[in-house]
Amino acid sequence: MRRIKLIVAYDGTHYAGYQVQPNGNTIQAEIESVLARMHRHPVKIVASGRTDARVHALGQVIHFDTSLEMPAERFVKALNAMLPDDILVKQAEEMDDTFHARYGAKRKEYRYHIRQTEDPFRRHYAATVTYKLSLEAMRQAMERLIGTHDFTSFSVTKAEVEDRVRTIYEAEVLEMGDEIIFRFVGSGFLYNQVRIMVGTVIEVGRGKYQPADIIQMLEAKDRRVAGITAPPHGLYLWNVNYEKVD
Amino acid sequence: MRRIKLIVAYDGTHYAGYQVQPNGNTIQAEIESVLARMHRHPVKIVASGRTDARVHALGQVIHFDTSLEMPAERFVKALNAMLPDDILVKQAEEMDDTFHARYGAKRKEYRYHIRQTEDPFRRHYAATVTYKLSLEAMRQAMERLIGTHDFTSFSVTKAEVEDRVRTIYEAEVLEMGDEIIFRFVGSGFLYNQVRIMVGTVIEVGRGKYQPADIIQMLEAKDRRVAGITAPPHGLYLWNVNYEKVD
Repeated sequence: MRRIKLIVAYDGTHYAGYQVQPNGNTIQAEIESVLARMHRHPVKIVASGRTDARVHALGQVIHFDTSLEMPAERFVKALNAMLPDDILVKQAEEMDDTFHARYGAKRKEYRYHIRQTEDPFRRHYAATVTYKLSLEAMRQAMERLIGTHDFTSFSVTKAEVEDRVRTIYEAEVLEMGDEIIFRFVGSGFLYNQVRIMVGTVIEVGRGKYQPADIIQMLEAKDRRVAGITAPPHGLYLWNVNYEKVD
Repeated sequence: MRRIKLIVAYDGTHYAGYQVQPNGNTIQAEIESVLARMHRHPVKIVASGRTDARVHALGQVIHFDTSLEMPAERFVKALNAMLPDDILVKQAEEMDDTFHARYGAKRKEYRYHIRQTEDPFRRHYAATVTYKLSLEAMRQAMERLIGTHDFTSFSVTKAEVEDRVRTIYEAEVLEMGDEIIFRFVGSGFLYNQVRIMVGTVIEVGRGKYQPADIIQMLEAKDRRVAGITAPPHGLYLWNVNYEKVD
């Protein structure tokens, strides 16, 4: 058996999320169904992590084991020929069998797009925020999130994770055309963490909170003290990195 | 009665086209249904022209007559509050009753987006052409289309229009990011004309025709001598102009 690593992009608009669920199409189900047709037996895939319904990915990473003898690169064309056109395999590579898409992930990058005016062409790809926003206040709030913190206040309490300490290496605000992008690079993210961080930073931008309030929010370890959860359709899993961070 | 001019953008992906048809939702039906709710009686709208199923608009122009006494600008918010989020009213203005969205149009601009690589996020918004293309040959072909010509070879013969002479003022090839844009400004366009011009110019770009062949195609006045019809989802009605051209 050879282990294949895929880099996959998808438009999450029409999916009930990444992971196989009782109701609704998922990215995982689509890819596994195509792999089963190619292999003539079920093939299980492992992703770096789930994404929720309507969340997008530019660089989701997946692995699976195959007995097929074709070169790894051939999986790109073969899979894309059968996958729906809102899922695209960008790269395929053979790895040794110690590679694991989920446990091996060292850093993840997420981006969140917002815009200040309605645009019918961006309705599934950026959240519209019509409040007047202070970029400077949002930049200061983002800086307070950098570092190693317990992110309990910025995660959904139903998540049964014991250790809620994560490290954010980079958190910045970018402007591109008429959109504002919140970019995060971290060791990993709790369930809904990016969307709650973005929702809170936007509330700082409109003056409901001060940038320094982020520090007390982190210390409180209580979801109720942070801001709202930003909607899913502005969020992109941008990149997953498997190299060791020094 | 006051005449109101609207500038409207729409994502045509989920519509059967602009004009009211027996089957399928149309842009016209959506707007007329909202206007009827506002007015409590049917309101007929007139557009600069139709767009086909899956074709988009950034600057479609529409007019209608109203007995409502609110300021014209208020129609923007009122309509957007009730319209689906893939249709956006960008501007509303009161005109005198000689204004006519269709008969008064002096110039129209269409743009057509293609890309050379697949992108799941652009699948409804640009046509993918994977052939290697010569930008220079496509530019030369576009230049041959400029001017006043009989465009019979570049229109669908079922169109029962007698006069197939139209003027193209501008025809250029733009590059934006990883997309190529064909931009046309003309006095008006026949049914499917832009899509057939683009399909033909792409075939010049891949070497099937020479740029100079465009001249013989125009002279032949026969649809069969021109190239294929490019798919609808790359096409945008960009702008309609009502000022006299000198």
